[in-house]
Amino acid sequence: MTTRWLTPEEQRAWRAYIAASHLLEDTIDRQLQQEAGMPHLYYSILANLSEAPDRRLRMTDLAERTKITRSRLTYAVTRLEKDGALRREGCPSDKRGSIAVLTDEGMSLLERTAPGHVETVRTALFDHLTAEQVGQLEEICAGVARGLEGDAPGSAPDGVPWRRRSSGPCA
Amino acid sequence: MTTRWLTPEEQRAWRAYIAASHLLEDTIDRQLQQEAGMPHLYYSILANLSEAPDRRLRMTDLAERTKITRSRLTYAVTRLEKDGALRREGCPSDKRGSIAVLTDEGMSLLERTAPGHVETVRTALFDHLTAEQVGQLEEICAGVARGLEGDAPGSAPDGVPWRRRSSGPCA
Repeated sequence: MTTRWLTPEEQRAWRAYIAASHLLEDTIDRQLQQEAGMPHLYYSILANLSEAPDRRLRMTDLAERTKITRSRLTYAVTRLEKDGALRREGCPSDKRGSIAVLTDEGMSLLERTAPGHVETVRTALFDHLTAEQVGQLEEICAGVARGLEGDAPGSAPDGVPWRRRSSGPCA
Repeated sequence: MTTRWLTPEEQRAWRAYIAASHLLEDTIDRQLQQEAGMPHLYYSILANLSEAPDRRLRMTDLAERTKITRSRLTYAVTRLEKDGALRREGCPSDKRGSIAVLTDEGMSLLERTAPGHVETVRTALFDHLTAEQVGQLEEICAGVARGLEGDAPGSAPDGVPWRRRSSGPCA
């Protein structure tokens, strides 16, 4: 099969995307580490729980919402449980399953941390975008996410991280 | 200071971005791990070296091009050197500096790996975008990267990863 190399326009877009996404993740992680001693992923876990009914989610649903593998989620949840930010409970309908519940302590950690985090997201990202670009970014990203989540027929069942146990060796 | 919370449009764009960027990185890393036994970062290091004059770059320049901290780069370069894909040389003009050089072995590893990687980038990202969206993505990301690279006056000197020694505890 002939390789479909990137066009110059695609190459420029790809490089700009790589640069922006690395810098954005670095900026957001650093602010959260400094202010709350946790990386962005941990914040996302707490934020997702805070919005769920009764502040509780099955681990599989939490992995799907945060777009990570179950092994990575288990590691993060164990750390957050040790810090008292959440607790785990058995799932009545599924013996294998487990439920993560945000504690009051976790909720107040999230409430203390949210303003600084949101300010960082705004300064790092949205302050650089017009209202039109906000819409464009959503449309682009939603299309890409839909494609990768395998809504397309014939997509591999392990194509998404939350259906896999681990993400392999990490860099 | 009153928190400038995200608007509903910004919140949708932010969540779509998080989902797309996690899924994209996961897909690209997984393909490279399976095909060449290396994560995306290692591929980027080899690709950047292959485009430099004489296939050599100072470590500081390589960190800036890949948008990572020097400690993370040092770790990756040590691994790649052990595999024979690159070698390190002293820098004549700067005793503290060090230069990374792509070996012939590294070049042929890159040439073998590029078609599969590019096909993945195309299938995962560009096949979902119109030509107009490719331009929008570049403009959005280039603006965000410029902002975070601290072209703005008064930005902190350690604001970018490649000017810091390490990125702190990792998740």
